[in-house]
Order: sequence, then structure tokens, then C-alpha cells
Amino acid sequence: MRVDGKAFTTIWADKATASVTVIDQTRLPHHFELISIADVEAAGRAIKTMQVRGAPLIGITAAYGVALAMRADPSDDNLERACGLLKATRPTAVNLQWALDSMRRRLAPMPPPERFDAAFNQAAQMARDDIALCEAIGRHGLGLIKEIAARKPRGASVNILTHCNAGWLATVDWGTATAPIYKAQEAGLEIHVFVDETRPRNQGAALTAWELGQHGVPHTVIVDNAGGHLMQHCEIDLVIVGTDRTTATGDVCNKIGTYLKALAASDNHVPFYVAAPSPSIDFSISDGLAEIPIEIRAQEEVSHILGLGADGDIHKVRLIPQGSGALNPAFDVTPARLVTGLITERGVIAASREALAKAFPERIRA
Amino acid sequence: MRVDGKAFTTIWADKATASVTVIDQTRLPHHFELISIADVEAAGRAIKTMQVRGAPLIGITAAYGVALAMRADPSDDNLERACGLLKATRPTAVNLQWALDSMRRRLAPMPPPERFDAAFNQAAQMARDDIALCEAIGRHGLGLIKEIAARKPRGASVNILTHCNAGWLATVDWGTATAPIYKAQEAGLEIHVFVDETRPRNQGAALTAWELGQHGVPHTVIVDNAGGHLMQHCEIDLVIVGTDRTTATGDVCNKIGTYLKALAASDNHVPFYVAAPSPSIDFSISDGLAEIPIEIRAQEEVSHILGLGADGDIHKVRLIPQGSGALNPAFDVTPARLVTGLITERGVIAASREALAKAFPERIRA
Repeated sequence: MRVDGKAFTTIWADKATASVTVIDQTRLPHHFELISIADVEAAGRAIKTMQVRGAPLIGITAAYGVALAMRADPSDDNLERACGLLKATRPTAVNLQWALDSMRRRLAPMPPPERFDAAFNQAAQMARDDIALCEAIGRHGLGLIKEIAARKPRGASVNILTHCNAGWLATVDWGTATAPIYKAQEAGLEIHVFVDETRPRNQGAALTAWELGQHGVPHTVIVDNAGGHLMQHCEIDLVIVGTDRTTATGDVCNKIGTYLKALAASDNHVPFYVAAPSPSIDFSISDGLAEIPIEIRAQEEVSHILGLGADGDIHKVRLIPQGSGALNPAFDVTPARLVTGLITERGVIAASREALAKAFPERIRA
Repeated sequence: MRVDGKAFTTIWADKATASVTVIDQTRLPHHFELISIADVEAAGRAIKTMQVRGAPLIGITAAYGVALAMRADPSDDNLERACGLLKATRPTAVNLQWALDSMRRRLAPMPPPERFDAAFNQAAQMARDDIALCEAIGRHGLGLIKEIAARKPRGASVNILTHCNAGWLATVDWGTATAPIYKAQEAGLEIHVFVDETRPRNQGAALTAWELGQHGVPHTVIVDNAGGHLMQHCEIDLVIVGTDRTTATGDVCNKIGTYLKALAASDNHVPFYVAAPSPSIDFSISDGLAEIPIEIRAQEEVSHILGLGADGDIHKVRLIPQGSGALNPAFDVTPARLVTGLITERGVIAASREALAKAFPERIRA
């Protein structure tokens, strides 16, 4: 999508020069800075320090990291070492594991001299696949926004609420929850996005607001507390959020606070959609609340916050009293009963076991 | 309640020296500083800059402000001027208006030389009345906590969630939502409080966490997004919040985000109580959603935040991109259907027109 009028993706690469470039997301929204990744160690650092984040982007960065390792030394030993180093950066990231397994499966049987070229091509293909997947979600979600726009008075905006960042910054391009929004803008629809700031890491205020603003999408940042009030007063036409993990029954595990917005949407008859690319669907799990372990992250994400100081530098400040503790569960589970529909790359479907099995029959074990 | 082991109230005064002292709440939780209020201008400044906040405390500070004005010049003109100056500091504060009207009614018929003494005595009486009212709420709320404690295994804490600061810092002592908590601690019950940070002004993280910590109440700060998840996992036994305005039918207007917690409590069968002193009840209003105008506050409360820097000073940092706007509704309305009960100074009653009319018959117009 666009940054300062120019088209960008979150990661791009050139095989001839073996160069990989990413956006440093730890500096957003206050500074737009690019990082050159020259070797597997740099790829690992970018993932570990969250300069790149978002499940798809982490996987693709890791794939390019393997390619860079194969350029330096395409031996079996180095392939194992590179995969081990990259996996250790975010041990619980499912996409990272999947990308590394896929690279290893492809490269291991090959003669070492062919590995760099194949690895680079495969990483590039993963990036293209991710873009195509997000675009498909965008096309299907666009249909939902068009339906609502058709019911509104001429010139009135469709108001969409989103939580956290399931935007293009979390993928290669388009994003998941944001793809229908960008497609709607491209289609000339009047849209306006309410962006939950999404404490504790503020990825809504910092990343979603930034990418929408750069791409020219009208938007307003609100605190996480405000969405229910806006729904009570008919200020929101639909909610679109992302998902980190979707069960076979349509329960959705997403950034903490998603469940509260789903409750408010249900209470106010606001459609609540989840942009759910099929890699997020875990057909081995049926009960999200009982079966999905929720990561407890560092207290410091609650007790402190990063922001831009008057001096133009980014500072960390303390928000809670000395001596007070904090608890920081990173995700929550929204039960399928609160989800109006899942926007998948194969269309908008019900959040139910039947609909998921019908849309992805090849994923159901016999 | 206690600060660093010593008993405090939020405001105290000495007639002989005409001195009034308050805690500077804008410096909390990082610095505990007292302010001497020597004249009506200083009282007005303390209210306007939110060094004192919370409906009861604002009213009592204003009452002392009138008393100080009467010491300087007890004329009719100065009484009017003082009331006008104080009213203008927070034009929408109902308690402020009520306190000033009450002072004016008492003082206006008096010979000027008697006014300072009477004003000072009346302000002190208001403070005592507020303490008694909060204590009564505490006694009634204690009964609810005792019932839950009796059902828990021996040694297990009763886990209470609260939102914003309806604590002693908002009143003179005890607080409203916190009064049952302090009473429970006094009674030797095992309790633990989850404190919503309460964006945008973070009065939970800054004030509630501080006052609980100083008084020795075990507590944990969470982001506003986390309460639903904790309720889903049975980590919360009951919710107690305050109210800025309660309708004749039991709808509750309180700090933005209260409604989301009420929805989650309802969805998870967690009792949701509102500490509702009778001055908060507006018997002229029946439909909170339709009839209570919601104050929209400055964008800057969303776009920026205050915190303690590494240098020990309090800094303001920017959280959202340049060019992004923010919307800041300060309150929301929780419909009576989501409220388990109102903890009033006359007992715990249903959030219904019938129960309110029965508990406060003198407030119902014939």
C-alpha cells in the first residue's frame, strides 16, 4: 500500500544483489525507517526485536533469512543452523515454524549449489501467495461493505471498527482485516474507520492508524473503552478484526479485547466479521476457550508505554505506581456465537464447523 | 485511608488558621504532594486543573472555597463573585452546582460578619456527611463480598474488578466503589482487586492502584481490554464500579468502558454492582441512553499520555501518528438490565424504578 504517496510492501528483495529490505515497525508511527537485512542473523534480529511482526510477515522474513544463509554457506549443517536460529526468535509463532519446515523440505534434498536460488525463489513465491490470499479476502469483504453502503444515504460513510493491527504491516500487502477497507476505498466507496488503540502495545494507534493515514483512508483513533458507546449510538456499521487462530468450530483467538467488542456488537446488532485466512484455521481444535493457551506477556507492556517526546525522540514512560503489579494476557477468545461471519480467501462463511468443513474440505482428516 | 502508613483524607481544613489542604492528584501516582489552598482563587484553580477531582471532592473543595472568600470579604457581592468563579471551573459538574447552591442558600440571609464561621462549619459538615455516606455504602457492599467469600475455599481471595477511580481520592474518604473493598480488608477477608487502567486518563492505573497500594490492598493493574478474558476464565468474582449519574430506572452513566465490562459480566454470570450514592441518582431521567448527553473531551487525552520518565520527571508523549484524529467520549451508559444491583447508602437494591422509588421515596415528586 502507499506510504507518503509511494507504493510499498512490508518486505522486498532482489536476488541479484541478495538484498532484503523491511520497514522497521518498532519506529512507527513516529519514524519511517527501512532496514537492510544482509544475513540470517539480521533476519533473526528483525523478528526477535519485532521490527517485523504479524504472522505472515514473520514467516516470509524467516524464509528470506534461510535464503541469505544459503548464499553464505549452502551446506546441510548451515541449513539446520539457520532454521534453528530463526525458530528460536519467536518460539510460539506457528507461521514461522510452518515457513521454516517448508523451506527445509524444499532445500534439503537439493545439491547445495542450487539451494540459494531455490530458497530465494521460494521465499518470493510465499510473499506472492500471501498477497494473493489477502487480496482475495479483500474482494470478499468488499461485498459486505458494498451491501451496507447501498443501504446508507448517499454520501454517508460506512463506519468500520477494527482492533489491533491486522493490516498490511502484518502481512506483505493489503492486510487481512484491512484488505476489504482498502478494496472499498479503491472501489470509490465512502468509508471511515474507527481504530481501537489496542493497549497494551497500542498496535492500533501506532500501526493501523499510520497505515490508513498514509494510504489516505479517513479514520479516527479511539481508546479501547469507547467502541461499545459508539455502537450504542449507531456510529459503527460493522466490525472487522483479524485472527491469530481460528478453531474448527469458528471460535476466534485474537488480540486481547476483541471479545469485548464482539459482545458490544452482538448487544447492538452490529455485524461482527473476522478476516480469517485459512492458515489461521486450526482444524485440530474445537473449543477455543478450553483448548487455546493464552500467552501471558511481560508486565512492562502494561506498566510502561512508548511515545514521542517533545524532543522528537521515542521515550518509555511509567504509567502505574511503584509497587503495583500488572497482568498481561495477550489474546482472548471470541466464541463463534458472537461472530457474524468469517471472511476467508474462499468467501464469507458462517463461523461454524459445518461451514468451515465445507469451505476447506481438504483440511478435514478422514 | 492510609498513605505510607498514615491516615489521610483528600481534603482537610483548620478554621482557626483558615487553612485548607488537598492532595495534588495530577502528580499521582508518581509524586505525593500536598497543596495549601489559601483563597477562593486557589480553590478554583485546584478544581479547574483537576488537582482535585471526583464529584464529592469537587463540591466540598468549592464549599471551602466559598468559606475562604467569606473570610476575605463577607459581602453579598463577594459571595456572588465567589460562587460564579467556582461554578465556572467545571461548568457541567452537578455536585459543584449543588454545593454552591447550598452554600449560597445558607449564607445569603445571614449578617456578613457571621458568614465565614457558618461557611466553614457547613463545608466541614458536607465533608463529614460524605464520609458517612461512603462508609454506609462500604458496610452494605461488605455484605456482598462476605457472601462470596463464604462460598470460596478457605484462604482463596475474593477477586474484584473495578474500573476508573471511584475511590477515596474521588471523595473525602473511603470512596464509593472502593468502600466495600476497604471494609472487607478491615474485616479480615482475603481480597484482591483487578484495576482497569481506564484509558484515556488512566485514573485506574494512576489513582486506584495507588490508593489500594498505599492502603495495603492486594491488587493487579490490567489494560481495559483484559477484563472479559479474565471473566471467561473465572478469575473475577464480582465487579464494583462507581456512577456519575444514575437514572430513575437504574441505568448507570459512568466512565467510558464501563458498559463493556457490564456486557462481559452478564455473559459470564459475574455479579456487576454499582456503588451509587443517592446524590448520583437523577429521578428526572428515565432513559440513560437517550437522555444523558455524553461529554466529548479533548483529543489530546487519547493522542498523548502522561508518565514518569527515566529522569524522574513526568512527561507527556504522543501515541498516535501526526495527521490522525481522535474521538474522546468520556462516559458511557450501562443499561439497568446489565446491573446486578445498586449499592446505595440505604442498602443494596435492584437497578429498577420500583426499587429506587421504594428506597428513596422522598425524592419522588408527587
